[in-house]
Amino acid sequence: MRIDRLIEAIRELRNPTALGLDTRIEYVPEPFARAHAGEGGGAAAVLAFNRELLRALRDIIPCVKIQAAYYEMMGAGGMACLGDTMEEARRLGYVVIADAKRGDIGPTAEAYSSAYLGSGAPYASDFLTVNPYFGTDGVSPFISDCGRTGRGIFALVKTSNKSGGEFQDILCADGRTVYEHVAERVSEWGSGLIGHNGYSSVGAVVGATYPEQGAELRKKMPHTFFLLPGYGAQGAPASHLAGCFDGDGSGAIVAASRSIIRAHRTAGTDDFASAAREEAIRMRADLMRVLPGLAP
Amino acid sequence: MRIDRLIEAIRELRNPTALGLDTRIEYVPEPFARAHAGEGGGAAAVLAFNRELLRALRDIIPCVKIQAAYYEMMGAGGMACLGDTMEEARRLGYVVIADAKRGDIGPTAEAYSSAYLGSGAPYASDFLTVNPYFGTDGVSPFISDCGRTGRGIFALVKTSNKSGGEFQDILCADGRTVYEHVAERVSEWGSGLIGHNGYSSVGAVVGATYPEQGAELRKKMPHTFFLLPGYGAQGAPASHLAGCFDGDGSGAIVAASRSIIRAHRTAGTDDFASAAREEAIRMRADLMRVLPGLAP
Repeated sequence: MRIDRLIEAIRELRNPTALGLDTRIEYVPEPFARAHAGEGGGAAAVLAFNRELLRALRDIIPCVKIQAAYYEMMGAGGMACLGDTMEEARRLGYVVIADAKRGDIGPTAEAYSSAYLGSGAPYASDFLTVNPYFGTDGVSPFISDCGRTGRGIFALVKTSNKSGGEFQDILCADGRTVYEHVAERVSEWGSGLIGHNGYSSVGAVVGATYPEQGAELRKKMPHTFFLLPGYGAQGAPASHLAGCFDGDGSGAIVAASRSIIRAHRTAGTDDFASAAREEAIRMRADLMRVLPGLAP
Repeated sequence: MRIDRLIEAIRELRNPTALGLDTRIEYVPEPFARAHAGEGGGAAAVLAFNRELLRALRDIIPCVKIQAAYYEMMGAGGMACLGDTMEEARRLGYVVIADAKRGDIGPTAEAYSSAYLGSGAPYASDFLTVNPYFGTDGVSPFISDCGRTGRGIFALVKTSNKSGGEFQDILCADGRTVYEHVAERVSEWGSGLIGHNGYSSVGAVVGATYPEQGAELRKKMPHTFFLLPGYGAQGAPASHLAGCFDGDGSGAIVAASRSIIRAHRTAGTDDFASAAREEAIRMRADLMRVLPGLAP
């Protein structure tokens, strides 16, 4: 099961970081973009940039989260770049999360699932992020594929953005919030797919920007692995993340995108690979400080 | 504004039908698929099939809703087919709805919006369906583009599937349901973008399979245009739709996909264009019976 592979890959590198490849052509240093220009409005340069980052970070980071939106906006050439980036990440041994937040009614969810989680999927990924607004029959096609292929999903529970609570935090008549209702279902959806490390193939997206809610969810969802956006560019410090992990320093992975892939901008250099390495190493140390369970 | 164009196109053809191009290669009759086979696993045949349907139905149906999932599952070639299908639909004068249910945090929602609603979008559409789970700051990039370009969105409020109510119908502490909370925001989001026909650029997806809730929402959201899935293959009869329209027979459009694009299967023929025409004409008459306001 890919959830076990993810947990073991994190343990091996002692680093619960997912490299977020939310690559916009503007992030690619101009000389590099010129040297790798091809047809299709920047997709060739983005692919070369991604490949170089993936190679540079392989001994530090175990997992990559690729945000579909930034490839979709470049048209069909961008989607080819998405597939090629995923292929390179798989070839290098990264665990691959497709961050596409897909969701629809059953027959359509089946089509999305076959794009990312099915056998022969054009964007074959270990995990896909999923929007749960449609409820069980909209999510079950993804879960069926997880059962068949060992792949997994991360369903949105509590998102990292400021307005996330607008619907997710609504207080329900039974005294719980909407996101707690969603959390309960997500936990149920994964109950038949628990791997040998105690976590299921059905994970949850929990914003690191809401540390109290994250810590509560950790207690209520002991078999649910968390994908934590919100660290770095979105503002959550490492101390906000600790409660989302279990006592062994497992149970979650922290996504960081702009802080790593734009580190060269902050550093004022075109050597993006070295700047990304430096930031990835700094981030690993930062996380390690609050996760003693992960230390050797 | 595209919402006015949509309303006027419906009035002109006296038909509130959106042709759903949820085209799977299995729907394409084999002789036709063989004759139009190209590289890329069926995308060429799907494009030829879509083009023939679009040409065959232009004098009957004003609007086309293209489901992104069925193109995404075919890889980059499928996404090129999505773009080419949209281009043909625009060229023929259809109002184009991209049914992609996209949604994410602000910066990522911006990227999705530029893929469908921005100027120079690779999948340029008049409308995009949007998932509201992230709340206002996740939806506002789409609304900004709507303000700039005159395009529009349809936000999920009450979906047509059986499990839709699992989260959407939860009773909140204030006595309202979650979908009523969402409906209120959707109405607010559109309040600054109302066209000369009285409807805003921010529409709502309301399942025709829940007629009572649809009729209630119609009253509560007088400026919100509805996209109604659930007719035909999903089981809602025309009588269930009437309450979602206003007194003039405007205010909503009914999506029908499988019942039209697979009509040749039901009829036992390979002449899919004629079978689709026949079903589209039958559907128009069926809708007209419950929408006297649309009659001449």
